[in-house]
Amino acid sequence: MSGKNTQVLMKQHPKGWVTEADFEIVARDIPKPGPGQVLVRNIWLSLDPYMRGRMDPVRSYAAHLKPGDMMGGGTVGTVIESNDAALPVGTYVNGMLGWQEYGVATAKELRVLDPKIAPVSTSLGVLGMPGCTAHYGLMALGQPKAGETVVVSAASGAVGSVVGQIAKIKGCRVVGIAGGQEKCDYVVNELGFDACIDYKGPDMHAAFKAATPDRVDVYFENVGGEIMEMVFGRLNGFARVSICGLIAQYNGQPFPFTGMRHVLVNRAKVQGFIISEHMEYWPGAIMEMAGWIKSGKLKYREDVADGLQNAPAAFIGLLKGKNFGKQLVRIGPDKA
Amino acid sequence: MSGKNTQVLMKQHPKGWVTEADFEIVARDIPKPGPGQVLVRNIWLSLDPYMRGRMDPVRSYAAHLKPGDMMGGGTVGTVIESNDAALPVGTYVNGMLGWQEYGVATAKELRVLDPKIAPVSTSLGVLGMPGCTAHYGLMALGQPKAGETVVVSAASGAVGSVVGQIAKIKGCRVVGIAGGQEKCDYVVNELGFDACIDYKGPDMHAAFKAATPDRVDVYFENVGGEIMEMVFGRLNGFARVSICGLIAQYNGQPFPFTGMRHVLVNRAKVQGFIISEHMEYWPGAIMEMAGWIKSGKLKYREDVADGLQNAPAAFIGLLKGKNFGKQLVRIGPDKA
Repeated sequence: MSGKNTQVLMKQHPKGWVTEADFEIVARDIPKPGPGQVLVRNIWLSLDPYMRGRMDPVRSYAAHLKPGDMMGGGTVGTVIESNDAALPVGTYVNGMLGWQEYGVATAKELRVLDPKIAPVSTSLGVLGMPGCTAHYGLMALGQPKAGETVVVSAASGAVGSVVGQIAKIKGCRVVGIAGGQEKCDYVVNELGFDACIDYKGPDMHAAFKAATPDRVDVYFENVGGEIMEMVFGRLNGFARVSICGLIAQYNGQPFPFTGMRHVLVNRAKVQGFIISEHMEYWPGAIMEMAGWIKSGKLKYREDVADGLQNAPAAFIGLLKGKNFGKQLVRIGPDKA
Repeated sequence: MSGKNTQVLMKQHPKGWVTEADFEIVARDIPKPGPGQVLVRNIWLSLDPYMRGRMDPVRSYAAHLKPGDMMGGGTVGTVIESNDAALPVGTYVNGMLGWQEYGVATAKELRVLDPKIAPVSTSLGVLGMPGCTAHYGLMALGQPKAGETVVVSAASGAVGSVVGQIAKIKGCRVVGIAGGQEKCDYVVNELGFDACIDYKGPDMHAAFKAATPDRVDVYFENVGGEIMEMVFGRLNGFARVSICGLIAQYNGQPFPFTGMRHVLVNRAKVQGFIISEHMEYWPGAIMEMAGWIKSGKLKYREDVADGLQNAPAAFIGLLKGKNFGKQLVRIGPDKA
């Protein structure tokens, strides 16, 4: 196929907060699929907080990027050239093709999507990595029991919104933490959380205390920083904390945490996890969540940036909590 | 029985570091055993870091002391008056009779000791709460595998020394952290640890890094503060951390911890625990450890202060790491 392939590269390692100057947009040749490969035209790119860690030149759970490397990321697209009879042209596929318009991959690297189950973009959100992250971190690690209090930060986000809704389905009292009244209203009125604390509000600590009269049994941690400090101070005996993300600390501001004493005093369990290491968990979780979507028990919201050229700004906004719902980039039209 | 009963009370809540002025020594009447009770003359008092937490007027896992309350604590003594045929005069008993010469209790509150198995003082150390704490925190929570690296702080202490020796029995590489060359030499030369880092030494961080070439799989945390910060920075993937104590932070200096990102990145599990909530674990652990003592695989060391009047100073020394081995107070002679 002729034409050019727009890609977004990491130009340099960010110093503190990511800026647009840390990225470079280039036009490369469209790759040709080799034997057994298919060429995919990407429709959706997922933007996720974990990508920030890969931009640092330090040890993390994934190889870090070098200047000039293409930004990685989850994508949804359609097969436009195929050397694999199992993936005919027109097939919707989910993969990790990164911040680019076109990519090649083999069937093993792709998941075939059925657009009749749900819009294909959900494979990057509620029925994909963020949804499975929420399900695993809450259910497998947090193990909430009906009547317990579950707290989730970044409550209106792709992960947090699913955590809270599943906890409600399981009969828990659910308290979200989010930035701004609009997000808090959404979380309570649309998603059915019992309460949501606005961390930009006047007295977060008093509001949080009032919203957790029976303290906190399960905490799903997405942000770190001052919010983590606050929630650990309200842990109950035998509390479980899933450390999913520490987005407030991803930009070189290590917030001094003094809450480890609450782990001891409350005999709490604190556990970090990476959902990609639990692939066996995904099919069951996705099937269950697809059922909840169908029955109206599980809602989701997407925040769409248009065009790869806007991906850096959208990513920076995500790190600052400006997105409202799962952050996606529309790379190209759904129909060719 | 006539005569007086020396007791040590908490006179006031400590402000920061405990001082002798926070205690008061009084002489009360010797209590009379009621129906079903026995009168015990205490021989040994155990001094333990957890006692510091009870002196604060804040929420902890145990009720805190009010000014004028007697200091609580584990004791070993002999029955000198008995209203229970199952506990004849002369029986050695372990209980929680506190910082006093004489106490009354029922059989349910006492554990009968057999002086033939081991010196009765060990029921306050290696064959008691500290030993069971070490066994449970290491084996039940840390689950070390042969070849893994186990790190323990306060390595020469009542808990740390047992943690390291069990880890050696299980085939691990064991690195201790202790204060001063004498303690480090003891831990390596007498107890068989592979290495011990002197936190008072010139470059703790470089020494620790050199001693953990394969990073850290299991960390048994007794101290908190700067040492906790350092060890979390060396955690391996899927590391397990048992939070047993944070003695460096017990005196009002909350050390700002920035290591939660290592929990996430390494998918680590951090767990607090209180051994008194796992009483079902004690008999098996004690039996196993008694066997190891008999076969020479498990050694212990006691640091004895003489007389209740010296208990406050010994306790203050314990909080500052001045003790060398299990800190005991000899309240009275073993034989009447």
